[in-house]
Amino acid sequence: MQNLGRFLGRHDRPLGDDSPEASASPSTSPYGANGALRVIPLGGLGEIGKNMMALEYGDDIIVVDAGVMFPEEDMFGVDLVIPNITYLLENQHKVRAILITHGHEDHTGAVPFVLPELNVPVYAPKLAHGLIEVKLRDHRILSASELHAIEPGETFTFGAFHCEFFHVCHSIPDATGIAIHTPVGLVIHTGDFKFDHTPVDQVPTDFARLAELGTEGVTLLLSDSTYAESEGYTPSEAVLDPNLERIIAEAPGRVMFATFASLIARIQQIANAAAKNGRKVAVIGRSMVNNVAMAQQMGYLRVPEGVIVPAESIAGLPPEQTVIIMTGAQGEPTAALSRIANDDHRDFSVSRGDTIVLSASPIPGNEAVIMRTIDNLLRQGARVLHSRNAQVHVHGHASREELKLMLRMIKPQYFVPIHGEYHHLVAHAGIAVGMGVAPENTFILEDGDVLELGEDGADIVDRVPAGHVFVVGRHLWDPSNGVFKERQTLARDGVVVAAVTVDATTGRLSAPPALKAHGFEAPDDHHEVMEAASQRLLEALEQQQWPEDDIEEAVREQAGRVLSRILRDATGRRPVVLVLVSST
Amino acid sequence: MQNLGRFLGRHDRPLGDDSPEASASPSTSPYGANGALRVIPLGGLGEIGKNMMALEYGDDIIVVDAGVMFPEEDMFGVDLVIPNITYLLENQHKVRAILITHGHEDHTGAVPFVLPELNVPVYAPKLAHGLIEVKLRDHRILSASELHAIEPGETFTFGAFHCEFFHVCHSIPDATGIAIHTPVGLVIHTGDFKFDHTPVDQVPTDFARLAELGTEGVTLLLSDSTYAESEGYTPSEAVLDPNLERIIAEAPGRVMFATFASLIARIQQIANAAAKNGRKVAVIGRSMVNNVAMAQQMGYLRVPEGVIVPAESIAGLPPEQTVIIMTGAQGEPTAALSRIANDDHRDFSVSRGDTIVLSASPIPGNEAVIMRTIDNLLRQGARVLHSRNAQVHVHGHASREELKLMLRMIKPQYFVPIHGEYHHLVAHAGIAVGMGVAPENTFILEDGDVLELGEDGADIVDRVPAGHVFVVGRHLWDPSNGVFKERQTLARDGVVVAAVTVDATTGRLSAPPALKAHGFEAPDDHHEVMEAASQRLLEALEQQQWPEDDIEEAVREQAGRVLSRILRDATGRRPVVLVLVSST
Repeated sequence: MQNLGRFLGRHDRPLGDDSPEASASPSTSPYGANGALRVIPLGGLGEIGKNMMALEYGDDIIVVDAGVMFPEEDMFGVDLVIPNITYLLENQHKVRAILITHGHEDHTGAVPFVLPELNVPVYAPKLAHGLIEVKLRDHRILSASELHAIEPGETFTFGAFHCEFFHVCHSIPDATGIAIHTPVGLVIHTGDFKFDHTPVDQVPTDFARLAELGTEGVTLLLSDSTYAESEGYTPSEAVLDPNLERIIAEAPGRVMFATFASLIARIQQIANAAAKNGRKVAVIGRSMVNNVAMAQQMGYLRVPEGVIVPAESIAGLPPEQTVIIMTGAQGEPTAALSRIANDDHRDFSVSRGDTIVLSASPIPGNEAVIMRTIDNLLRQGARVLHSRNAQVHVHGHASREELKLMLRMIKPQYFVPIHGEYHHLVAHAGIAVGMGVAPENTFILEDGDVLELGEDGADIVDRVPAGHVFVVGRHLWDPSNGVFKERQTLARDGVVVAAVTVDATTGRLSAPPALKAHGFEAPDDHHEVMEAASQRLLEALEQQQWPEDDIEEAVREQAGRVLSRILRDATGRRPVVLVLVSST
Repeated sequence: MQNLGRFLGRHDRPLGDDSPEASASPSTSPYGANGALRVIPLGGLGEIGKNMMALEYGDDIIVVDAGVMFPEEDMFGVDLVIPNITYLLENQHKVRAILITHGHEDHTGAVPFVLPELNVPVYAPKLAHGLIEVKLRDHRILSASELHAIEPGETFTFGAFHCEFFHVCHSIPDATGIAIHTPVGLVIHTGDFKFDHTPVDQVPTDFARLAELGTEGVTLLLSDSTYAESEGYTPSEAVLDPNLERIIAEAPGRVMFATFASLIARIQQIANAAAKNGRKVAVIGRSMVNNVAMAQQMGYLRVPEGVIVPAESIAGLPPEQTVIIMTGAQGEPTAALSRIANDDHRDFSVSRGDTIVLSASPIPGNEAVIMRTIDNLLRQGARVLHSRNAQVHVHGHASREELKLMLRMIKPQYFVPIHGEYHHLVAHAGIAVGMGVAPENTFILEDGDVLELGEDGADIVDRVPAGHVFVVGRHLWDPSNGVFKERQTLARDGVVVAAVTVDATTGRLSAPPALKAHGFEAPDDHHEVMEAASQRLLEALEQQQWPEDDIEEAVREQAGRVLSRILRDATGRRPVVLVLVSST
């Protein structure tokens, strides 16, 4: 956490020492006799994903977004990552509502894990509402939950907070930001946004309302930093129309598009381009089919009758009359595109003459697996278009010039960059200071920092618990849980197990120790190494004198130490060694 | 593998079916009565790294390069990846020499693993020769090896092959390509190269010799594809000089540079810029110190007396008079920069006012860890410059316009793109065809493909063993080795071990089964789950009737199945279950 005044000047606290002199409670805040607003990011600041922001004033807390993050490769066995909501649970009685800005997983995915612990009403724009409903039904908690669909422009009061959602453009329909009137002034939370003057759904970011709010005077702006390092303006979705039309028109055979299941605008553009070229469109893959059905039903996707056809019937058409839309543009191993690339999809495979378009930007960390997918498609003779060799995607976040426009319209007194890794936040804070926000009013917060903001000023006053919580099967786990460390050592050199049976009174072995290895040595050395180890362990244990009080424990400890050393000497590796002792 | 004539036309073999109608031996080659040249890539085609190319004519084989690749995250416990040299071992008597183009690990790193199996002379340019010498000494095989330092322009005869190394520019001094006169004509292997008219060491790629060779007439060009998707020209190293000088001149405090230990040119540029600004330079980290010492000794690095000072003495100087050079620009966990970012370096830590420059392009797959390193430096108040926000690095490979220049000068009859993932090779083949190489003379090979080339034509006629060989501690392992699969399952859900002691004749349990888990469940659930599992296993085994012939095996099999089911029912997870049975 850094205050930019301090950031640009000198650094007066050692890293990691984030404890304030005293933890201030809202009622005794130094930042105003009338109490202070507490701004408490619980996810998404200092990282991409699992967005969650709490705002607290007196006895009221509202929470904006409750998202997930997908596990990194070294988070062995982890299904999802969600925010730590300890602070909200400790202040349950204050929490009035969760407000969702839009339907992406990194803003909605934690809702089914949060509600069982913290059953508060959830307010979300229509499409997000529909998607959350599906999630809660899957988790069998829909009937126990209070879920409201909102319209931009409606206002809601949650204790001290008066909230109004406003429309923004993003890579999913029905995305919003939130204007929050608080006792210390107006707070604008942008959600994820870009300024697109020609979005596919014809609903641009609500400039008029933003300008009005800016004129009212804004105390605090919380603004999306994801592309704060990207120069210029993010291109409009409209720039893709001629490209997609030309790709389809010129393709000698079938055209397959891979994109995000939630990117309804792209699906609309592809369907339009296909219709213009007299092609039929099939949508394949469960999540894609479901999303398209929901989007059509709710009116977010409007395709002329007869253009979209069932996957079964597309196979019967000549390739040059077909377009297929699927997921897998991030190289997700179970998605349709990956299966097709690996030639193990049930219904579709690549034919020479196929054109395959990956309409997505690689999410950092996915580059290698995406290129592997592309290579497998190329090997089968397809032409492959993707972000490196064609303009086939635009993303949904504001670039630097758009972030400046937002700052210019809103003219906030205080600024906190949100949604981004630390370098994104630093870049965005730099933009804000360049646009005239006072450095001492610009705060780079990270998850868990508590910013207090009142009429007499603002400062970071406290830290609350924050960080990753792992969803592992049915459990929520603390990442500091030793199990992950254990899995890392298991992955590196495998495990060797010994079962030792001893006489309960003398400690003498009743049988030779039984050894078994898994993930340890290569088969060709294995037998020999294990035989020798077993023999040496037997010798070592037979020579040993055992104490009378706890023979089993003494044998276990000694056998573990001896066996580890034997294996290290023989192979140079350090497998996990587990010893089970039974006495007869 | 693809012939581009076929590639651009139709695909007549199913994927994976790479077997030719008949495996042709050189003496009976259909491609010329006088025998054919066999071009056999064993590494680096269809991947980045572990470069190795064999050329065979009659009874002679020469091998160009013998590199390593670094393991990917899912290659658990693997230290290095080297090429499969089965084909060379089967034809040992033919192998005349290994020729090394330059000193990078992906061209030299496998030499110490290959020579003990295949003791042939190694020819390398001077710097590579020095670096290989160090490796062979470390592996205690230097005295048993025959190692020759070559000079560009010298010629060598290895059976049917007459070879001449020529100088090219790359991101290490003393890089070369090789002109190989064969009975079927001249073959040019470019090595890794770029065309830099103003390289730091003042030795540009040898245009004159390349132009001469082109005029002689070239049968086959093997050319570096690493940046075949990159438009335009790769910038010269010289463009960095003013940038580096300005960064150092304007830095209020210390400047730390992280780059590759082999990138002597960059170290030279930094030292020059530091000297101009009256700063002292310290080099830290073992590999960086060693490389700088060797480069100075061999004359590749020329720094005025007194500019480079020991790391110990730099700490005593005012920060604004110092520059530090280290490794870690790829986020390597044990490199100096990573340690400094994590605040666990023995001698150095970040201070506010420090400027840190990552002078490297992120290697695909490393982006996430590099950004984490940058974030940790920013959190400590440093200014961080890197490839995304400043021009602080140029890479060492030819971009598309340079590849065209090479093709224009060489005018080859046949073309094989080398060094790159499949999409790079496809892109480079596209350039070659665009420059007039006949599509049917352009071959996209992958490791193991055998291209035969004679006076009557060329075609892919065979496949030889190729792919990854894993270096794991002291062993060389086949990746298909089940151990890696076992490690993956261990990493996902951990392991549960049961020791069951039974009466040898009745199969009745002599004691309750002992259970132990590692990397399985979280501690808070663990105890309860394991108690219940033990109890249920006991009950299940006690109810069982055992066959008389092999009680131990029957108990092991049954206990494993029952315990797996119990654990899955209780937790939803599928740990590895190992059962050890002893009988008394």
